[in-house]
Amino acid sequence: MSDYYSFNLPASSKLTSVSVNRCFDGEQHYYSHQSTATKTPMTFSIYLPDEAMAGNRCPAVLYLSGLTCNADNVTHKAHFQQRCSELGMIFIAPDSSPRSSSSSDADGATDVPNDERYFVGQGASYYVDATREPWADNFNMQSYIVDELYDLLRAEFAISSIGVMGHSMGGHGALLLGFKFPSKFVSISALSPVCAASESAWGQAAFTEYFGEDKAVWKEFDASHTVATVGQQYSSILVDQGAADEFLADGQLQTPKLQQACEKAKQPLTLRYQAGHDHSYYFIQTFINDHLEHHWRMAQLS
Amino acid sequence: MSDYYSFNLPASSKLTSVSVNRCFDGEQHYYSHQSTATKTPMTFSIYLPDEAMAGNRCPAVLYLSGLTCNADNVTHKAHFQQRCSELGMIFIAPDSSPRSSSSSDADGATDVPNDERYFVGQGASYYVDATREPWADNFNMQSYIVDELYDLLRAEFAISSIGVMGHSMGGHGALLLGFKFPSKFVSISALSPVCAASESAWGQAAFTEYFGEDKAVWKEFDASHTVATVGQQYSSILVDQGAADEFLADGQLQTPKLQQACEKAKQPLTLRYQAGHDHSYYFIQTFINDHLEHHWRMAQLS
Repeated sequence: MSDYYSFNLPASSKLTSVSVNRCFDGEQHYYSHQSTATKTPMTFSIYLPDEAMAGNRCPAVLYLSGLTCNADNVTHKAHFQQRCSELGMIFIAPDSSPRSSSSSDADGATDVPNDERYFVGQGASYYVDATREPWADNFNMQSYIVDELYDLLRAEFAISSIGVMGHSMGGHGALLLGFKFPSKFVSISALSPVCAASESAWGQAAFTEYFGEDKAVWKEFDASHTVATVGQQYSSILVDQGAADEFLADGQLQTPKLQQACEKAKQPLTLRYQAGHDHSYYFIQTFINDHLEHHWRMAQLS
Repeated sequence: MSDYYSFNLPASSKLTSVSVNRCFDGEQHYYSHQSTATKTPMTFSIYLPDEAMAGNRCPAVLYLSGLTCNADNVTHKAHFQQRCSELGMIFIAPDSSPRSSSSSDADGATDVPNDERYFVGQGASYYVDATREPWADNFNMQSYIVDELYDLLRAEFAISSIGVMGHSMGGHGALLLGFKFPSKFVSISALSPVCAASESAWGQAAFTEYFGEDKAVWKEFDASHTVATVGQQYSSILVDQGAADEFLADGQLQTPKLQQACEKAKQPLTLRYQAGHDHSYYFIQTFINDHLEHHWRMAQLS
């Protein structure tokens, strides 16, 4: 790069520092900011290795969380910090949806709609821009992730490239956004992804709320359908799936649909069914290093 | 060993399995049981590498948690599972005190006393047997750890030896119990330990409740005083301390007191002040592998 950036964190009035903790050779930060896409305050965590803190651009991976999760789950339980420190890699975890704030403070919090089902509403955005009320006003997580947060991250931190990964509903998000916006991301991976949201009970419930009953619209936001339609975009993608995952057994994940879509698209896919493993962060911590290394290798090739 | 044990887990009617998750080459378990020492149900987590699951005896490390923590904090946030899997090491995390149960169920839960201060009462046992009411009935964590749980663990799991480590108030516990009962433990380490509870505001508040005003009694439960009195017991002990730890700065930890006690006792001590690090689990995850390897090496020598 010919340009030189001096990243002095916290760098921007757009970001409010929530916390910072030394962790390996780097720092685990939380920031909040007012989102124009969701019209709410949004919080994300970002692990910055010392190289990035010093202003040297590092590859980044954006992690999209699953149902019910915010940035804390992956930041506390996925154990990514050590390998990110060793690789010199930035790790960013946004929230999985807009949220109602618990108090009516001055930072623009609004009363965000919700649903009593854990797979619809807050914590369950599916990373799409909803078109139906009451969701359309706040549930614009596609725009938040691929436009607003993406640009903010590139402006505020020493990032050379961005890969996208996710877990469960966030795995759906990583596949969907990675194939809809391949110019934005250099790599994709997923852990126990919802591979065909339009064919799972979770996704059907959410898409009915966010888009209405037209199943042709649902297909546009189905990860496997998108992969099959868009065609090959990445030299390889990595997916790990617990073989003992109850949500695989009950049809929420539809993993074979992704395999079929990749075959149709001639998209190289490394798909690993991991014996004995379930859907939990114990599964994620076991395999996340392989995912970080996948994104690292892809970033070197980009 | 000439005897052969077949450990079929869950092995005993004394233990109730709460959860099990595959994690690296092993399993993360939670168990609960009715404690005679505390007269309450107690829950602990135990990571069992596949070797231990197969009945081959493995070295174990007992982790004593700090103020406010239960087994979840270390099990979710300390990132010990990978190295324990690689080493073939068992990791056990008991609760930091007896607890009131939220419902009056049939498993013997009692109404455990508490204190509104976070450094006294539930989550703050200091791993001692209290002598004053209302604490003496339930707050018998020394007996729970070194007798009841210790014997239960050795009976129920494929354990070859046990080391003890802890964080903060649990670091106090590890040092105190390790030097009071050196025949029970093969190794000691601590992360940001409360080194001289009788000289810290936290410890003075707790000891006043548990033992009364007699400061001579407090000394018997002060880790540094115990080390100086008992003398050298271990070939080396490992202590990590964040140099930017706010509780070091405000006098709760009294780390130099431990150094002076070890010098007096001729107890070899590796004490590392880690630049930039605070009191959090981000600090713990950064250095826990060194502690696991310390306990592993000591177990090989035992």
